[in-house]
Amino acid sequence: MTPPGRTLKLVLEYDGSDFAGWQIQAQGRTVQAELARALETLLRHPACPTGAGRTDAGTHARGQVAHVHTTSALPCDRLVRGLNGLLPPDIAVRRIEEAPPDFHARYSAQGKRYRYRIRTAKAALDRHRVWPLKRRLDPDLLDAAAACLPGTHDFAAFCKQDPVPPSFLCRIDQAAWQTNADEFTFEITGNRFLRHMVRILVGTMAQIAEGKRPPQDMATLLASGDRRAAGPTAPADGLCLLEVYY
Amino acid sequence: MTPPGRTLKLVLEYDGSDFAGWQIQAQGRTVQAELARALETLLRHPACPTGAGRTDAGTHARGQVAHVHTTSALPCDRLVRGLNGLLPPDIAVRRIEEAPPDFHARYSAQGKRYRYRIRTAKAALDRHRVWPLKRRLDPDLLDAAAACLPGTHDFAAFCKQDPVPPSFLCRIDQAAWQTNADEFTFEITGNRFLRHMVRILVGTMAQIAEGKRPPQDMATLLASGDRRAAGPTAPADGLCLLEVYY
Repeated sequence: MTPPGRTLKLVLEYDGSDFAGWQIQAQGRTVQAELARALETLLRHPACPTGAGRTDAGTHARGQVAHVHTTSALPCDRLVRGLNGLLPPDIAVRRIEEAPPDFHARYSAQGKRYRYRIRTAKAALDRHRVWPLKRRLDPDLLDAAAACLPGTHDFAAFCKQDPVPPSFLCRIDQAAWQTNADEFTFEITGNRFLRHMVRILVGTMAQIAEGKRPPQDMATLLASGDRRAAGPTAPADGLCLLEVYY
Repeated sequence: MTPPGRTLKLVLEYDGSDFAGWQIQAQGRTVQAELARALETLLRHPACPTGAGRTDAGTHARGQVAHVHTTSALPCDRLVRGLNGLLPPDIAVRRIEEAPPDFHARYSAQGKRYRYRIRTAKAALDRHRVWPLKRRLDPDLLDAAAACLPGTHDFAAFCKQDPVPPSFLCRIDQAAWQTNADEFTFEITGNRFLRHMVRILVGTMAQIAEGKRPPQDMATLLASGDRRAAGPTAPADGLCLLEVYY
């Protein structure tokens, strides 16, 4: 059964620094709660936006997607302006589009792209956007570590298994590092991502790039599925959800 | 007379958001005061760093340069680490080099490069780094306005004349806009810059790009030297000092 009225697709940017993540919680400021409040004011009915995924506390987004159902007739461009006026400075609505009635931000998503940034020197301007890692990283080892990621693999070793997901299988379409002096940027595109997956991948690849473990460990970890054998979870603020594909 | 000991050249990055600018003041948190305090702790003698220029309150730097004289024998790399540990999170020392005894961050400078960013849509992640301007800007008009800047001109119309500088002549080597969707970035390189010069140039060019005044006004203003005829001073937080040339 399709809901009455319209389904809207919202594309959002936010600075995750002062949020307890995307998802509404009993306590703590969340993106979903701020957005719901602003939507209810404009749409004049209860509204709970559904996100494409739950970003962690501290994680940023340039292209998070959410959908919401509404009986309001407000045009999309007026909704964008209205929401941007009502929302706090650390959330921006980039655009709103009419979507098919059965569009679902999470279930309709075909894939996502994330970026993770490491800085090996002190960062002042980008201090809330990078993982400050005071160690020497070898770019060739980062490349070697990332090389085995494309393809479909069981990512159980790179997942916070709380709760245990129905499947650990993810298809990675692209995964590569770029190095620019003391900044190391990882971009990864895939059909789905498990909880903390990008952060554990980065934490493990950083250990490889420091020479603490061999690049072959990535393949070994994919085969073993042993979370305890993988590296630490890299900090949330280095991560940014760039885009959701439909 | 050359001072005793060493002259050090420091390259600095800072987030200007929470500073009352570069220069030490009776009141207000300043970059120079924070740096002086950290230097005195490490060098174990009074130290007052001299900057290449005074950035305004809110203005950022990726490559501000300062010099300081010291009798300390601490190697440069240990000073970098020590300062970065002592300095607050919004100031980073990128590098420190030994300089000739008569090196002066301001008087030895051959030129500077600045960047100014305008966003015509709400910015969440970069909200302290851009001028949020809710108007439609024509990129061709921005290009036309900037085209007359290269060369040596009298910039009296684009200067806060308090105090009146000894000369209004500046040589601009490069000045151009880049447009990327709703972001407009201006980069300008020149031998010297007057007080508020980049901000008044941007404020005037934004009026031209809105269609409020013709692009020819830039040349007219350069010829007239009339500050009251130029546009408003664009906000400080869109501005970033990228590099100082020696």
